[in-house]
Amino acid sequence: MKSIILQEKLKDGLNIVEKISSKSLTLPMLNNILISAEKNFLNLSATDLEIGINWWSLAKIEKEGKIAIPSRLFFNFVNLLPNKKINIEKENNNLIVGCENRETQIKGFSAEEFPIIPKITEGESISINSSSFCQSINQVVDIAIPSTTRPEISGVYFLFQKDLITIVTTDSFRLGEKKIFLKNHFSLKKDYSLILPQKTAREVINIFGEKDKELKIYFSPNQVMFESFMEETKHPQIQLASKIIEGEYPNYQEIIPKKYTTSLRFDKNEFLNQIKSASLFSGKINEVKIKANPKEKKIEIFSQSPEIGNYNSSVLGKIKGEPVEISFNHRFLLDGLLNIKSSEVAFELNGDSGPGVLKPVGDGSYIYVVMPIKSS
Amino acid sequence: MKSIILQEKLKDGLNIVEKISSKSLTLPMLNNILISAEKNFLNLSATDLEIGINWWSLAKIEKEGKIAIPSRLFFNFVNLLPNKKINIEKENNNLIVGCENRETQIKGFSAEEFPIIPKITEGESISINSSSFCQSINQVVDIAIPSTTRPEISGVYFLFQKDLITIVTTDSFRLGEKKIFLKNHFSLKKDYSLILPQKTAREVINIFGEKDKELKIYFSPNQVMFESFMEETKHPQIQLASKIIEGEYPNYQEIIPKKYTTSLRFDKNEFLNQIKSASLFSGKINEVKIKANPKEKKIEIFSQSPEIGNYNSSVLGKIKGEPVEISFNHRFLLDGLLNIKSSEVAFELNGDSGPGVLKPVGDGSYIYVVMPIKSS
Repeated sequence: MKSIILQEKLKDGLNIVEKISSKSLTLPMLNNILISAEKNFLNLSATDLEIGINWWSLAKIEKEGKIAIPSRLFFNFVNLLPNKKINIEKENNNLIVGCENRETQIKGFSAEEFPIIPKITEGESISINSSSFCQSINQVVDIAIPSTTRPEISGVYFLFQKDLITIVTTDSFRLGEKKIFLKNHFSLKKDYSLILPQKTAREVINIFGEKDKELKIYFSPNQVMFESFMEETKHPQIQLASKIIEGEYPNYQEIIPKKYTTSLRFDKNEFLNQIKSASLFSGKINEVKIKANPKEKKIEIFSQSPEIGNYNSSVLGKIKGEPVEISFNHRFLLDGLLNIKSSEVAFELNGDSGPGVLKPVGDGSYIYVVMPIKSS
Repeated sequence: MKSIILQEKLKDGLNIVEKISSKSLTLPMLNNILISAEKNFLNLSATDLEIGINWWSLAKIEKEGKIAIPSRLFFNFVNLLPNKKINIEKENNNLIVGCENRETQIKGFSAEEFPIIPKITEGESISINSSSFCQSINQVVDIAIPSTTRPEISGVYFLFQKDLITIVTTDSFRLGEKKIFLKNHFSLKKDYSLILPQKTAREVINIFGEKDKELKIYFSPNQVMFESFMEETKHPQIQLASKIIEGEYPNYQEIIPKKYTTSLRFDKNEFLNQIKSASLFSGKINEVKIKANPKEKKIEIFSQSPEIGNYNSSVLGKIKGEPVEISFNHRFLLDGLLNIKSSEVAFELNGDSGPGVLKPVGDGSYIYVVMPIKSS
């Protein structure tokens, strides 16, 4: 292998694949990236056996070939080089890297020892705008938590339909649902649903979220693949393939309340700030109390702890329905509020022990269901 | 106690004293700050028994008095309030805090339980510009390391003379010396030397380093006090008193070489970047090798490790004296280079086993002495 590539390009690629390469002590080969020179492209790949990633760049290839190189070292080393041409050349199991007056020899491994990164070449696929897709995942991804007893709810549930993508997460105390309504319908023969590992969902956001580009998603029974393209050549630029979580996602629709007994509307930032202040006095079970009466124009917020003290305050708001006094874990309220983009928020309640629903006002694409702390 | 103060002012004060209040589990009273209202001033104080701090602000005082309040809670709480007037009032051992529509009761403790913060009221003092003093400490403070066997070298040594302040730190592998040459001589009856705990030196930089103000330093046999003033009233704004470390600072002058066998000059950033790159290949003992010959115009830099690979490079430079090949711990070189402000650096060497001296070119106020790794 012998190739010439600009430092800036190589740095961009390493920045993407280095994150996926594992820090595994039991399988040290996974701490490497595979560098391959083929035709006009330099290709970097890495895997942690759950996610596999490929990145390509146009480069001057003087001799084809491949080698596995310690991922973190090569990333740090290339980051310190000036933005000049870098010569890389394989010599036995070493990579010789030259840049200006620097000459480096990095010990590597035979490419044959590196695991094969799976690709999906058959089956249906869809194309979507990468940044709006990633922003949507971002509104729900942090709700899921690792679970060994119920692995299916530890992931992010996706349902792809002709005119709609639905993204759902839950930790059984709260649930987030985000919908993407599609102007250009997908030409899918059937609906596809899958449960993506939370780690993959976060990497998809990191890797594809920044740029407004075409993102292609390939479906297969046990895997999913995300792909972006080079602008000039339409050659793949990044392919991220991931295992999906086996099992059936729970019928979450059942727990989303269809009606409410009390409806509140308030300014998001003011309410958020009050919940944060109240949280300082909420004691061990994180309890913050909300009290609302349709005869008044303000929503009261309380918290108290015998050791710390107590907090009383209110925010202006519109109150409809029945009077209510209800307690929530402040962390669950904050998580939901922070994922809402609108300045005004609706909070629909069902008595003091039924689920509450936070929604952005004027935007039907997001709901956040949260269970109250039951009054004793 | 009853007082009214603007949120912004109180926040500024808490930001300063909260850092000093201890996180001690054995003496939980030290996790509090003392709030006192006296005459026209609100005063916050905290101590960790090594450092004591006082902060004052003009405020509307309706009733004098004092109370101890959990430091972290009050800091977090005030930070979340809007920049409006805050009413604080002592009721038994509680602090009632009101701001707009918020009403809070925070459990506190009797001021009598809070330790007395020492002040220095006698002895000589000097005045100096706070930001240049703190920048000077900053150039050496990180070199010292904790030492139970030789506590005197774990601190920062100061020598105050009529026309000169000298600040020195060492960890026995390297030594930094910074001099402040004074235009306006101090009217001191004698020289004062003291060893300041490293933690105090860092707090002095944090607290007084940002603003270009008068900083007054008071000397006493076992303590030192730093003081800044309110612009309008010239009343003290911050007083930081600290214990000093007992013992004699070593006669460090002896280990500063008075001559050299080889002198190198090079661009600081280029050399710094090369040492960082070389450090990636330096292996377990952090060894980076430098080779210079006065017949050439470049300084060579090497490193190698059997597991990782090797690095060869060079920087342009001026070389005088004898040819030399010398090894250093890359971390020690980087620390010294990062504390030098000039773009050009002189590196004076004494064979392959004598100490090296890094100096800014065109600035006689700073030297960094570093021991090489002896060639085996």
